[in-house]
Amino acid sequence: MNKIYATIITIGDELLIGQVIDTNSAYIAQALNKIGIVIKQRIAIADDENDIHQALDTAFSHSSIVLITGGLGPTADDITKQSLGKYFGGKMILHQPTLAHVQYLFEQVFKKPMIERNVQQAVVPDNCVVLKNEKGTAPALMFEKENKICIAMPGVPFEMKWIMQEHVLSIIQEKFITGFVAHKTLLTAGIGESFLAELIKDWENNLPPTIKLAYLPKFGMVRLRLSSFGENQVTVQELINHEFEQLKTLVKDYLVIDDDIPLELVLSELLRKNNKTLATAESCTGGSIASAITTHAGASDIFSGGVVSYSYYSKNKILQVPNEVLNTQGAVSKETVEYMVKNVLTLLNTDYAIAVSGIMGPGGATKDKPLGLVWIAIANKENVIAKQFQFKYDRERNIQHTIVTAMNMLRKLMIEDGCTL
Amino acid sequence: MNKIYATIITIGDELLIGQVIDTNSAYIAQALNKIGIVIKQRIAIADDENDIHQALDTAFSHSSIVLITGGLGPTADDITKQSLGKYFGGKMILHQPTLAHVQYLFEQVFKKPMIERNVQQAVVPDNCVVLKNEKGTAPALMFEKENKICIAMPGVPFEMKWIMQEHVLSIIQEKFITGFVAHKTLLTAGIGESFLAELIKDWENNLPPTIKLAYLPKFGMVRLRLSSFGENQVTVQELINHEFEQLKTLVKDYLVIDDDIPLELVLSELLRKNNKTLATAESCTGGSIASAITTHAGASDIFSGGVVSYSYYSKNKILQVPNEVLNTQGAVSKETVEYMVKNVLTLLNTDYAIAVSGIMGPGGATKDKPLGLVWIAIANKENVIAKQFQFKYDRERNIQHTIVTAMNMLRKLMIEDGCTL
Repeated sequence: MNKIYATIITIGDELLIGQVIDTNSAYIAQALNKIGIVIKQRIAIADDENDIHQALDTAFSHSSIVLITGGLGPTADDITKQSLGKYFGGKMILHQPTLAHVQYLFEQVFKKPMIERNVQQAVVPDNCVVLKNEKGTAPALMFEKENKICIAMPGVPFEMKWIMQEHVLSIIQEKFITGFVAHKTLLTAGIGESFLAELIKDWENNLPPTIKLAYLPKFGMVRLRLSSFGENQVTVQELINHEFEQLKTLVKDYLVIDDDIPLELVLSELLRKNNKTLATAESCTGGSIASAITTHAGASDIFSGGVVSYSYYSKNKILQVPNEVLNTQGAVSKETVEYMVKNVLTLLNTDYAIAVSGIMGPGGATKDKPLGLVWIAIANKENVIAKQFQFKYDRERNIQHTIVTAMNMLRKLMIEDGCTL
Repeated sequence: MNKIYATIITIGDELLIGQVIDTNSAYIAQALNKIGIVIKQRIAIADDENDIHQALDTAFSHSSIVLITGGLGPTADDITKQSLGKYFGGKMILHQPTLAHVQYLFEQVFKKPMIERNVQQAVVPDNCVVLKNEKGTAPALMFEKENKICIAMPGVPFEMKWIMQEHVLSIIQEKFITGFVAHKTLLTAGIGESFLAELIKDWENNLPPTIKLAYLPKFGMVRLRLSSFGENQVTVQELINHEFEQLKTLVKDYLVIDDDIPLELVLSELLRKNNKTLATAESCTGGSIASAITTHAGASDIFSGGVVSYSYYSKNKILQVPNEVLNTQGAVSKETVEYMVKNVLTLLNTDYAIAVSGIMGPGGATKDKPLGLVWIAIANKENVIAKQFQFKYDRERNIQHTIVTAMNMLRKLMIEDGCTL
């Protein structure tokens, strides 16, 4: 199979000064990968014409597809359009359909007067194909050169995503004959990357050359991704399925899910498919468990609500943790999380509940209760299980590890209770 | 002032397949920028020796400093160390101090048996300076070539950050004579990028050439960053201060803070400095407001707690929203958020409270209540203010816009109440 290479160029001083994190590249890479395109490079450069031209030279030296985001906005620092026009040898003209669309957006959607600056969004090089942007004022622009293509998209993530789905992916699929690629990912929790590698090393060493394995660790979880490439779709699929089954058997003690799904969604689906409901009582995670669960649409089917009991007062007042327990055992104690979990379950009348209380840092540690100490409790209608953990990271990671550990504890309890996905 | 250029190379197939988002580059870029280094490019490439060597050639063609993250782990797909050794012409040796450190970590910190794979972390090229990694097993490696340097760091963010602060920044400061750079950033809310640009265009067009302005929009907020470069520290500072004051005056109606601080921290500081406390009652944001506030250390001083009332049941049971109101007006209504905000303030006895309820999508819309409809209420001990908003985005952005709008409403109320920062 001939590999088709793509390069992703993100343009904007803000990326080089580090004030924004680039999420567009990951989205684009994932979308291209799914249709069998190999990403050769991702490059971030400044809003500078020379740098843009040099990056294009480099990209075209190894890639047939160059996707660009950023620098198409209406402000003075946005120069992508002009730079591309020059690179491909065009001159700037007013594109009437785009102007009509911009006018429509201002009159009908934004309901604000349009200013001269917005008209500039409709000025494009005359040597490109204009791809309509339903979601915003800046259209995407496609240039062709010696059977290679370059498409520039706005950097606003939801506009870029719409343009990718609506235009870019089908253009690429039609223009470039590709082979087949398959990915299969599983999620493990509770084992470190190096121990996982040790566990599967004999199998990994014997993988066929058309299969690649990647370790993707994050906050106490490791995702393992197998990728298979080839010219025959059936072979590609059979081979990856075969190896994936072996991998699943090897890691079964740590396996969360044999799919590329985040833990909070695994837990949500487990609740949904078994008609169960959840309540949360969070101290140290400050609402992050509830927030993670409700990020996904349809959370109201399975999540009744939660209490962020960040103070003694709120633990006592809403969750009825006795003041005596708080004053003698402290907020970070077995007794407190047991009260929290039992009482939030009763209060919201749910099937399951999670409670966490810990010292996330940098302050708050005492002689008896070191930084990173966390109590987690989970409950169903009959039982409460509380466990103590000692995390050793900074505040952000301690919070993330607490979230992951708590959700995974509940997942295991649900499976013990006979719930299935 | 001679500009010193750096290139950041991130290595790892997972970046090119888009399964992880690269946050390391932003951190490194920000840290280098603060000491006056200009980032020429950020490049992400695969775990592939040829690609690594080519990226190094390109990087050294325009940059004196090359910082690399990723591919230093103990698994088979990690080949950065070997590739760098070869590029700079060294051979692999066992580095005893690193081995001792790895042994120490396993014996004293992880308290797990060490395996052969972990010993590999101490094998390094013999032509580099080994920079100790207190936070993990993989050390950083520094290579020098014709007065240019290349430093490879592990990709685990908290290890990389520690190495940057402990080793890399001081090495760069000592080795490269740099001029001075100053940045000043302010945060606006409630005005779009193009309208902001229109408001300040005369001033922007007359900026001196050593000053650069960047627009950094995010979820209903725009940060404006001024950067000033030069050889004389006093001039650089005076010039940026002068322009920054003018900018502040121009945007005063939308100014949140004249500093590079996120909105939730502005609100937290406003509460802290005025000895006020906050409670939250969240429906559609699912705990994200509480989570944002408690991300920052010391939140317990100002945040008593919150209720994530995701169901009718929890709104009624914990927040005492009358069932009659829920059944006649619905959860997304003026009456409901007014009850939520008043009752959470009373329940937790705080000075201020925020309540939100809305339809975030993709489901949940009705004929009368379209997708993106949100009611936000804020309260102090005396008053409740409720407002209706109509957002027009996807679920994630609707949630983010709700968080920003609610926190900014409360900030304005606190300022009207005489609170100062």
